[in-house]
Parts: sequence; structure tokens; C-alpha cells
Amino acid sequence: MSAATFNSVSCSRGCRWKGDGKIWKTNKPNGDYQLNVKRHSVVSPKGLSISCSKLEKEVRVALLGASGYTGAEIIRLLANHPSFGIGLMTADRNAGKSIESVFPHLVTQKDLPTLISTSDADFSDVDAVFCCLPHGTTQEIIKGLPHGLKIVDLSADFRLRDISEYEQWYGQAHKAPDLQEEAVYGLTEMFREQIKAARLVANPGCYPTSIQLPLVPLIKAKLIRDQNIIIDAKSGVSGAGRGAKVSNLYTELSEGIMSYGVTKHRHVPEIEQGLSEAAGVKVTVSFTPHLMPMSRGMQTTIYVEIAPGTTVDELYEQLKLSYEKEEFVRVLEKGVVPRTHDVRGSNYCYMNVFPDRIPNRAIIISVIDNLVKGASGQAIQNLNIMMGLPENAGLASYLPVFP
Amino acid sequence: MSAATFNSVSCSRGCRWKGDGKIWKTNKPNGDYQLNVKRHSVVSPKGLSISCSKLEKEVRVALLGASGYTGAEIIRLLANHPSFGIGLMTADRNAGKSIESVFPHLVTQKDLPTLISTSDADFSDVDAVFCCLPHGTTQEIIKGLPHGLKIVDLSADFRLRDISEYEQWYGQAHKAPDLQEEAVYGLTEMFREQIKAARLVANPGCYPTSIQLPLVPLIKAKLIRDQNIIIDAKSGVSGAGRGAKVSNLYTELSEGIMSYGVTKHRHVPEIEQGLSEAAGVKVTVSFTPHLMPMSRGMQTTIYVEIAPGTTVDELYEQLKLSYEKEEFVRVLEKGVVPRTHDVRGSNYCYMNVFPDRIPNRAIIISVIDNLVKGASGQAIQNLNIMMGLPENAGLASYLPVFP
Amino acid sequence: MSAATFNSVSCSRGCRWKGDGKIWKTNKPNGDYQLNVKRHSVVSPKGLSISCSKLEKEVRVALLGASGYTGAEIIRLLANHPSFGIGLMTADRNAGKSIESVFPHLVTQKDLPTLISTSDADFSDVDAVFCCLPHGTTQEIIKGLPHGLKIVDLSADFRLRDISEYEQWYGQAHKAPDLQEEAVYGLTEMFREQIKAARLVANPGCYPTSIQLPLVPLIKAKLIRDQNIIIDAKSGVSGAGRGAKVSNLYTELSEGIMSYGVTKHRHVPEIEQGLSEAAGVKVTVSFTPHLMPMSRGMQTTIYVEIAPGTTVDELYEQLKLSYEKEEFVRVLEKGVVPRTHDVRGSNYCYMNVFPDRIPNRAIIISVIDNLVKGASGQAIQNLNIMMGLPENAGLASYLPVFP
Amino acid sequence: MSAATFNSVSCSRGCRWKGDGKIWKTNKPNGDYQLNVKRHSVVSPKGLSISCSKLEKEVRVALLGASGYTGAEIIRLLANHPSFGIGLMTADRNAGKSIESVFPHLVTQKDLPTLISTSDADFSDVDAVFCCLPHGTTQEIIKGLPHGLKIVDLSADFRLRDISEYEQWYGQAHKAPDLQEEAVYGLTEMFREQIKAARLVANPGCYPTSIQLPLVPLIKAKLIRDQNIIIDAKSGVSGAGRGAKVSNLYTELSEGIMSYGVTKHRHVPEIEQGLSEAAGVKVTVSFTPHLMPMSRGMQTTIYVEIAPGTTVDELYEQLKLSYEKEEFVRVLEKGVVPRTHDVRGSNYCYMNVFPDRIPNRAIIISVIDNLVKGASGQAIQNLNIMMGLPENAGLASYLPVFP
Repeated sequence: MSAATFNSVSCSRGCRWKGDGKIWKTNKPNGDYQLNVKRHSVVSPKGLSISCSKLEKEVRVALLGASGYTGAEIIRLLANHPSFGIGLMTADRNAGKSIESVFPHLVTQKDLPTLISTSDADFSDVDAVFCCLPHGTTQEIIKGLPHGLKIVDLSADFRLRDISEYEQWYGQAHKAPDLQEEAVYGLTEMFREQIKAARLVANPGCYPTSIQLPLVPLIKAKLIRDQNIIIDAKSGVSGAGRGAKVSNLYTELSEGIMSYGVTKHRHVPEIEQGLSEAAGVKVTVSFTPHLMPMSRGMQTTIYVEIAPGTTVDELYEQLKLSYEKEEFVRVLEKGVVPRTHDVRGSNYCYMNVFPDRIPNRAIIISVIDNLVKGASGQAIQNLNIMMGLPENAGLASYLPVFP
Repeated sequence: MSAATFNSVSCSRGCRWKGDGKIWKTNKPNGDYQLNVKRHSVVSPKGLSISCSKLEKEVRVALLGASGYTGAEIIRLLANHPSFGIGLMTADRNAGKSIESVFPHLVTQKDLPTLISTSDADFSDVDAVFCCLPHGTTQEIIKGLPHGLKIVDLSADFRLRDISEYEQWYGQAHKAPDLQEEAVYGLTEMFREQIKAARLVANPGCYPTSIQLPLVPLIKAKLIRDQNIIIDAKSGVSGAGRGAKVSNLYTELSEGIMSYGVTKHRHVPEIEQGLSEAAGVKVTVSFTPHLMPMSRGMQTTIYVEIAPGTTVDELYEQLKLSYEKEEFVRVLEKGVVPRTHDVRGSNYCYMNVFPDRIPNRAIIISVIDNLVKGASGQAIQNLNIMMGLPENAGLASYLPVFP
Repeated sequence: MSAATFNSVSCSRGCRWKGDGKIWKTNKPNGDYQLNVKRHSVVSPKGLSISCSKLEKEVRVALLGASGYTGAEIIRLLANHPSFGIGLMTADRNAGKSIESVFPHLVTQKDLPTLISTSDADFSDVDAVFCCLPHGTTQEIIKGLPHGLKIVDLSADFRLRDISEYEQWYGQAHKAPDLQEEAVYGLTEMFREQIKAARLVANPGCYPTSIQLPLVPLIKAKLIRDQNIIIDAKSGVSGAGRGAKVSNLYTELSEGIMSYGVTKHRHVPEIEQGLSEAAGVKVTVSFTPHLMPMSRGMQTTIYVEIAPGTTVDELYEQLKLSYEKEEFVRVLEKGVVPRTHDVRGSNYCYMNVFPDRIPNRAIIISVIDNLVKGASGQAIQNLNIMMGLPENAGLASYLPVFP
Repeated sequence: MSAATFNSVSCSRGCRWKGDGKIWKTNKPNGDYQLNVKRHSVVSPKGLSISCSKLEKEVRVALLGASGYTGAEIIRLLANHPSFGIGLMTADRNAGKSIESVFPHLVTQKDLPTLISTSDADFSDVDAVFCCLPHGTTQEIIKGLPHGLKIVDLSADFRLRDISEYEQWYGQAHKAPDLQEEAVYGLTEMFREQIKAARLVANPGCYPTSIQLPLVPLIKAKLIRDQNIIIDAKSGVSGAGRGAKVSNLYTELSEGIMSYGVTKHRHVPEIEQGLSEAAGVKVTVSFTPHLMPMSRGMQTTIYVEIAPGTTVDELYEQLKLSYEKEEFVRVLEKGVVPRTHDVRGSNYCYMNVFPDRIPNRAIIISVIDNLVKGASGQAIQNLNIMMGLPENAGLASYLPVFP
């Protein structure tokens, strides 16, 4: 019998636990393995049967704001995560409840902690935080967190580098300008190196993610003009959150489409910040979001002018090159239209570029699941990087759900 | 008792019948009216109770292609029409069937004729024809119709004035070039005078209707530039017809959005024809249609450059002015977003114009029900005009159905 | 020129107006008619073009609770009504607003009165009232209305004859027991004679309508047993109203189904009241409603035991017989399945009966649009009867909207 | 450095590969592991980054009929399977194509084999087969497969033990009666022991799965009567397959519900077979399926008579007891309604039982995802058992996707 000693072990499902331990093959004829971790001893029958919940995962995360859609999606995605265990969940209005009473689809997740109010949370046994709270309240809460924690904030509160822009678009002064200076913008494929070293990551908005992923490489390569960029975006309803609003009732949205926030959507400054940085000059975009009868998904159709002397093929090749090593961003074959159905439930962004009828123009289409790559999935991708784990940990297993 | 003599009479529901007749108030204490039309004598109790089907309406129409969605919609809309009665319905694959066996929602329409094949149709007792057949087959069928008939063709077969464009986009030579010269393009609000005198009207496509209604007045008034017009359109699924295609299955379309026919949709030449005529120069547009999970409805979001020295307010005022006397085209109050939900089932087009973030640009939004103003409703509107009837006959009563 | 004198006139659209007047054919070559009503003089071009809003319709109705879905549906349906004009609309939380600001699909209805609060309403110029207020508040409001008004109440407040049942199911004492004694239950096809003479009609609930229409004739004819009646009902979301509730958000309901109120839905006593009266003994039913991803529509699937010695054919024939003269209740051909799609937007109830696999059992299916025959349509049907008008006034023109 | 030798190894994602190999901790400071399998040598950075596709998984499966929805769902679910690798995929009409051209949501699965026609398939390198072909054709194809293969058949061709019943319901003689005798019915929780030893498993239909799971334990325990069982079932559209049919178009199904196959659905004999076996007498059920506007999901609402002297609590306790050790069947807390939304995309069946208003009756509700527990998920569960693997391999990671 050959044994190995670890200071952290992983089961056959890929979960990794804290604590010293040993693993060895038992003498049982079926080839079971024996794990000893801390005070636990588990016999692992071939395959998947170790109950991961029996052991404490390597990284203990707190989830602030667990009763919204992005919170629930983090729970869903972390169910497969090898290293992240949820040690703490807050939901102020649902404090004292189990997660299954708030989200019945999580009824099988019996090992999750009871929801508590944020003010009751004890962060002493926590390594990292996903913050899914509404913008406006988030700055002060994050300011009060212990300094040793890694934080991914899914609100808009730390996305705008220029705090005067925050004040202008959100109607209130920024309450944590020091943290803003420290915050790293978490568009993973663009800021991977900065994210590695970050303590606080501002997770991008869904629209900005779907827009910057195709545009930033093209602008940087100067293949498209930075003027007259027209963005027509279509979002699923979950982007509007789980608040009780008449305008988001089934009856109000089914079987129809509507533009909203025309030229005034709060994602505008975030989009322009990213494109301006890529261009080296101030970029102003035309951005019109539309609300669609679908729960998840986002398509962005972008109309651009090609740089003089450039071809659409060059745009395509640049995107191919930019993303050839990326797991979650895929440039489809030429001529294939990306569809939101084909990324639903997954962390993928699919994109493509098409020649326009008008000479020297191109049409760019990108699709994501607004709750995954547009929110909770990218947040996990970022925390993976911040913790030194493989970037796809817990995410690679989620293939799109179709139909 | 005071009597009036007519050579056509109308009931209290507004229906008008052929034949000489008399109407007078009876002596009955409830104030009933007595109608004598041809051999029929009907006592009309106060209100609606004359069964219109007992009498023959003034104008007898044939419906070619009754088993598709536009055909069924014409039947629905004509149920309230005062002067049009359906005397003949064809549906080649469903010949011999009742309409209710093909469209169970029409089960109450027991007076409709049985479906026959087009080749069996006798047009001798018919005054007008709605042709809802697929493009390609329509030219020859219309060529064969008696010359005295008024015809509204809902296919694409007579929309393009330049028959070489037809050949280019539809992949086959035009089979009735003489008829093409005669055909009047049926965008009602633009070509009302020509439609009055027309024998053959080419009913516009749904996309071209929703696009030209806002753009043509602005282009004619030279308030927007005729270059770089970007059109992002979103359509309900009924626009794809009732053919059995995998790509239109519920499972393939629900809860998602997809672009299709990028830069290659066959409505492009029709759109460009209309805009070019308005501009006086050849206009090339960027046009990207999207398929949405909704059965009916169409939104077009159009991104334009304003003419130098012009303001968005001037665009708004021009649209207001252009449509102030139109019943079916409504320019909403400033700032109000048109929604497809709010025109569903009706012949209305709602539109509005918004200033863009980028200086000297505007965003125009128009919505229609693709099956009504985008097809069958506009067809009835056109035939009303061709027959010298009020333009809104049979259409005004259909308020949008929401939710 | 032949003229007729009336004390109320109707236009070619079927609308009827108050006041003495004259109508005559003008000398104009186009055959226009001239109407003089009160101080208004209108030239009616052939057909539909008299703007009805210029004149005052015969019956002036008040609409209490205009900002809910049933209120909006009454407005939609009354747009075609020949005799009912809306003179007053209340909506407490939206007082001071136009109806189009609350329901943009009614933007073309510029002649409707501004919304006011119920307490500000002056009923002196009103003939009849549709009351679309929530249960619980309705009893006191109706108690306070002038006694001369005809009232159709769409709430549940006057549906239960036994006020102790009301208290039991609604958790509060009945506040107008005298009115309850006077109230007539408005299941039109069953209580037509009583409705004629009624001052206050309690309009039935949507579930009770779809259930009683097929069951009452069969129970009365003793063709089915009154025991073990199993009712599995499926409703569109509009039945839940327009309140801002998380459970009715698009994201919560799309693409799924759920039972709710299992055995405890408040329509149970109303259903059992109707069936018990038909049976002559107390009937207890099994009733399970389901919420479906559709805005409108209701299907009820009912599982019954056939009376000994009876056949399913006899059930079918009884239903055929019971409804052969009814305009709005249709028994489909044998074997044809009623579908909610096929009554959408209309006042029809379609039904059919099928033999079960288990001997001596039958399956009954009925479908309605919950907002029309299940609420606002039946309310208008009832007021028509109360005012001595044709029962189908304003309703017959609404064919189902499909797709 | 401590090493372990295996004759099959698993990576940190849980995948297990064929072939002898070694695993050891490297000297690298980051604690990477080194795997040597056959000719491959892979360094595993902490966590998930071994590309499983580089190695050959332990069990090689063939997928017959990969271009339907159940085929695609098997591919999706196997993406996370530790031991099953897809070595062969057939799709007669799409032979020669890549899976991504048929199902664009699988575009990231570049390692899957090209689709071939079934007649071209070489089964010599295959250990097991999922057969997703239409009923009728399946019997002969399975008859022709090499005898050493384990087979899970998702069609209806081997579900009915009595081949005369097959002939009666499917209109053709059974073509493989010998195989039928051998076939084991794959309702996993009921026939686990037989499945272990089976060579050919007939995977249950979706309706029969959702119905038998709650009913069989109650019938066996004689807690409910075996007469007058009323089953009202509601299914998502994917159950109808991916064939091009008008009746399954988006426009035909959106925003409505319809019963179909009333008393004649082909799942009836399968349901009655299972219940009869449990009861020990022939059971005849009332079964009415409904088609719903949702792509996935199935709810069954079942109305039963309780055995004399029994309480609903006893039914609840029996279900709790029957399923307390089952991973994929969950009896919810008393009073909690199972919703299809809450199992979407997962292999779970949620159920509950409620007292009816009618004494001595109960209402049972169960929900599944028709494509997972109702088809492809249960098929994998079965093959796991047949291959001696943990039953939840590849399935446990799929939490329900909501919203």
C-alpha cells in the first residue's frame, strides 16, 4: 500500500480541503482510497461518493446579499467548486431563514449556513467575500470589512475610476474614495495580471462585459474607429434583479420588447471608461438597452466604422488572436451567428464579426449569460485568480443548457 | 313612420350590404328599425343583433392563401368590417377543409366558405383579392386573375420596382414585368393617392413598414443624413410564417434572441428603394433583423446622423406634423418609449425620437404588430382606399390587446 | 332628400347617442349622411368615419379601479360598444393621471376622463358602474353608491350568498349583508333572467366561470355524479393582478408551472355554491389551480364520474343542447380539444367532453380568456342585459387573437 | 516525493482514465502533481487544469441518435462525467457534420467525434451504448449490436413487457421479443438491483417516471387505492422532440396550454404496467397530458383515494421513508409545493402530498426535468449502475438552473 501525505487533499470530484492529511489505496478489492483529513476519515469508493460537505474546503467565502439572483447564481456555481466553500451568507430582509426557503431550487444544499443580517456577520473565519449588495450601500459595507479579506464586489460601487463620474451617474457622493483607488476592474481577460494582486475587485456590469470583450481588442489594435460606435443591447429580465416591481411582472414583459434608459443607462460611464482607456482618447458611445422576454441572456449588436485601409477579415483575425487561448471567450466560425440560447447557464462569451452592407462598416455580435459571465461566473473567475487557483475552477463544468 | 331608401344599407354594427333596400323605424315601442334588403327582411332590435352573415356585404373579397398567419389575420380583422365579405378562400394543401379545422380560433366563423385550391377558384362573383401566397408563385397567379379585380398582394413579388433587383435578391426572373409597372407600393400613409387609383397594390413588408414610416418624412425634410443609417430590428416569430421548420420550434426560440440574415435579409432592397426615393439619391442601409421569443410584434431601433444645424426637437416636430392627421401612426409624447406590447393586435404604429449621447445623432424607435400594420391590417387599409371606403373601415375597432 | 327623426341615433359603427336628432342623406355625390344630434352636427362619410367621441353615448358608465388589468380590459372592450360611454374612472393611487400614462396601450383613447380618486367621484351623471376594486374594500364602497345605479362588481365581495362563508374564507365580516341579499350572481348563461332585473350583479370569478359552465348543466340533468369531482385548473398570470409581487415577476414564472393554493383557493366556496345549487345537495370538490407562463387564458380539466346507465355521448348531447343558442359558449365537435390560444382576447368559452379510460368516467375540458369571459367581458355581457341591450353588444366583434 | 501507482487514475476534476499510471507530488513549490498515464505525462497545477480530453476515459460510450434533444442532453451531462467518454456518435440525416453544426451550444466540445450514420458505426472500441433513436426503428438496431455492450435504450421499444401491448399501442409487431425478455425497466430507484446485472435497460418515459416515483411506494404499501387514479400531467415542449412540425412552432404554443392525446397517449400502457405490478392487480388510470409553453420541465398532479383508515400524514411518511436515502428523489417539507422551475436542468425529482378537500382523498405533485430525470439523466444514472460506478457520477454536479 502506497500512501501520500498532503497538507491539502482533493477528492475524486476535485474538491480540495484544508488541513494535513493522508491518502492511500486501501486493500479492499474494489480499489477504494482512504483519506484522512484532520479528524475526519473517509473511505472513497471509486468515483464521486465522498460527501464534500463533510470536510471544510480550502477557501472559505462569505456571500453578502444571498437572496438576489446573482447571489443564488454564485451558490449554484460554487456547488461544483473544488476549493471554495461558503461559510457565511447574509440577506438582511431574510435573516434567520434557510436558503431553500428563499430559493427552493437550492433545497438540496442542506449544508449551507443560515442567512444572517450583514451586521451580524463574523468575518474572522472567512478568506474571501462576494458582495452582491445594491449599489449605494456597498461602499460603506466593504469599507468596514477586515483588511485581510479578498473581495469581489458585484455592485457598481467601485467600477468607475473617476469618483466624480460616480456621483454624477448615481446621484450621491462616493463614500470610499481610498478603496476606489485600490480597486481593480475585473474584466478578467483584460486585467488578469492586476486581478492576481488585487484585494478588491470591482466585477464588471453585464452590458460592459458583453461590449468590451469584442471592442477593446479591436480598438487597441486600431482596427476600428473610436467614433460613432453604436451599441444596441438586448438583456434578459434577471438583469433587473428580484425586486418587486410592476414593470418586471410576467404580464408586463412576456411577448414583447422595449427599450429602456435610452442614452441614460448607468452602464454608460463604465462602457466609455473601458473604451476610452483602450483608445487613449475619450470615447462617447451610443448605447440603447432593450428588455426582452427571457430570464437570462444578453446579446449586444454593435455597429462600427472600420479604420481606413482595414478589412473585416482583419477584425476577425484580431479577435481570433486575442482570444485563442481563452477558455471562456470564443470567436465562432466565420458567418456563424452567436445566439444567447447557446451560452445559457454557462460562463462563455461567444462573438463574431460581419461585414456590413455599408462599405467600411462592420457588425459585431456578442452573447453572454448575464448572470454568469455578466455577473456571478466572472466573479468566481476573478476570485479564482485572486486566490492563485486555476481560473476555470468550478466554472468549466457548466456547459450551456439548451433547449 | 318615416322611411329612407338606399341602394345600400348599413346595420347598427356598421355593416353595409349590397342591393336596394329600405330602412324605417317600426311602430314597436322599443324603437326597433325595419330593414328590407333584397329578399331579406330583418328587424333590428336596438343595437347589434342583426346577424350580418344573413346578408351579402357590399364588397366580396377572395382570400388566396388562407391557411397562413397573414390569411388568418385578414379573416380576424374582416369579422368587423362593414363592407368586405369573404366570398372565396383558397389553401392548396388544405383544400376541402373548413377554416376552423386549420385555425381552431376561427371556429365561430361558420359562414366562411370552404377552402378550395387556387386552381378551382371562380373569381366571377368577386370584387377584390387579398393574395397571401408565398413569393415566387404569386406573380403568375396574379397574372391569371380577371382584370376587373382589385388586388392587394401581401407577398414580396411586386414590391421592387426594378425587376433586376427582384431577380438578384430572390434568385429567379420576374414573371410579370408588365404588372410590376402597374403595381403601386402600398405604404398607405405615403402613397395614399396612388393607391386610390391602383388596381394592384404591393403591400409592404413588415420591416420596411416599421422603418419607412419614421424615416421617409425625416429624409424628405432633409433633417437627417441619408448615410450611415443603422437599423436594428426585432421581430416576432409569426413573421417567419407557419411552415414546419426546426428553426422556428418553440424549443429553439423560447428564452433567447438571435440575429439572422445579417446584411442579407430580403427586405433590404425594399427598404433602400423607399429611402432612396425619399432622398433622391441611392441610399444603402445597415439592417440587422433579430428573432425574438414573441409571436407578434416588431420594434425597429434606428440610429441616424442629424443634418448639420438641425436639432432632435426638429425631428420630433416633423414627425408630429407628418402624422398629426393619421389615425394609425402615432408619435408619442416626448421621452415616452414605444413598446411592442402596446400595439399588439392593432393596426397602429407608435414611434418616437430621442437625442443620442453622441452629438448630432438621434435614436428613432418605431413599433408595429407585424401581422397587422406589418401585413394584414395595412392590406385592408389599402383595399379600403382602393374601394373608396373610409380608410379605417374594420380596423379602428381593434385596440391593442394588453396584457 | 328623405329624413328620419330619432330620439336616439346610431352611427354606421353602431354607436348610439343620447338626445333627439335627425339623420338624412345629403345631396353630396358621395352619398354622405347628415346627422344632427343635440347641438352637434356631423357629416358622416360613407362608413366609419364619425368620431363617436364627439357625441355622448346612451349609457354613461363609471369604472372604479381603472388601473388594474380588469379595468383596462373593460376600457379595451368598451371601445367598440355602441351604447356604453365611460364618463368617470377612478384609480386611487393614480389619481390625477391620464389612463395612457398608466396603460400605454390605451394611448389612442384621448377622450377618456382623467383618473380620479373614488372619494372624489361624482356619480350624478352616471347610469351604471363597473367596480374593479379589490375584495374587502368593495362592500363599503358599493354601499355608498347612489341607489339608482346599475352595478356590476368584479370583486369577490358579493359572490357568496352565505355571508358566514365569506367571513370564513376572507377573514373578515361581511360589511353589507343587505346588499348581499339583493345581489344576483352573474354567471350570465345560468342567471340571465335574474340579471335582467338586478341592480347589483356579482360578476363570477374566472375559475368558477370556466368550471360551472360545463358542470352545471350536467349536474342539473343528473348525468354526472356530484361526488368526487376533480378539477385541475391552469391560469394565466393576469389573474394574479397588477400588484408588485416577487412571485409574479417574469423571472419567477417564465418556463415553468406551479400549483398554488392547493385545496385553499378562495374560489372554492364559489364553485361549491354553484354546483351545490345545481345538485340540490352540498357538493365538495377537489380544486387545484396552477399558474402558467401565459398572460391570459385559463383551461380547466375536470374529471367526473358518470351517472349509472349514462354514456359520454349523452353528456356531449346535453352540453350541445344547453348551449346551442348561446353565442359565447361553444361545444366543439366531438374529439376536438379546446385550446386557450383559440379564445384569447375574446368572450368565448369553448368546451368538450371525452370518455375516460376508466369505465364510467369522463374528462371535461373548458377554456376561456380569464380577463374576458372570466372577468371584464362577462361583466359587460351582464350590464348589457341589465340595461336592456343586446347581450353581445360590444363583445361580438372580438374574435380570438391568434397567434 | 511520495508516489502512488494505479491501473487507472483520476484527475482533480474527478475524471478517471484507462491505463496504468503513476501520480506523485512534484517538487515544484506550488505543490503541483505529476501524472503519468500511458504515453501521456501531464503536470496538474493545483485544481482543475488537466485537459481531460487529452486522455481516454475509462468507459467508452456510443451515442446513437445524437441530433435530437435527448442526445444533446446526454452530451451536456457527460461533459462532467468522470468515467464516460464519448467515442462514437451517430445521426443519420446529419452524418458527416460536427455536433456544433447541429447544436451550436456544444461549440466548445471540440473533442467529440464527427457524426456518422448508424450503419457506418464500428462498435469494436465501445463499451456501452446510449440509444436515442425513435421508437419503431430501435428494436432492429439494438438486435444488431455486439453482444458484449451495455445498452441503455431511451426509446419506448423495450419498455412494455407484454409485446402484444407494444403491438396494440405502437401499431406494429415487436421485432425483438427475445431482447424484450432480457430487458430491464430502468426506473432506477425501483429496479436498482436488476439494473446492476442488466445488459439492456429500457429507460422509462418522462411521464411514467414522474408518475411512478410517487405512486409505486404508496401502492406497494397499500396506502392508496389502486382504483380511480387521476393523473393530470403538464409537459415542456422538448418532450415532443426536434422534428419539424407545425404544431410545435413557437407561434402555436407560446402563451397557451392544450391537452393532447386525451386517454390515448402512448405512455399509458407503461404507466399501467408499473402500477399494476406494484398493486398486484391490473390498474387502469386516467391520464391526461398537457403541452405547456416551456422548453423543459414536467409536473404531474395526481388525485388519489386514500386506503380506508389511512391518513395523508402516513402517505407523507411513507414517501419520506422510501426516498430518505435517495440522492435524486426529494420529498419536500410538508406544505411546500414542488415547482418545475426548481429542478430545471437537474436530475432531481421533487414531490409532495397534500390532503384534499374531499375526505379520504389526497393530491400528489411531482416535478422533474423531462430531459434529465425524464430521459438522459436517468439513462446516465442507469449506465453508472450497470458499469459498477457511483450512481450519481456526472450527475450530482448539476444543480437546478433558476431563474
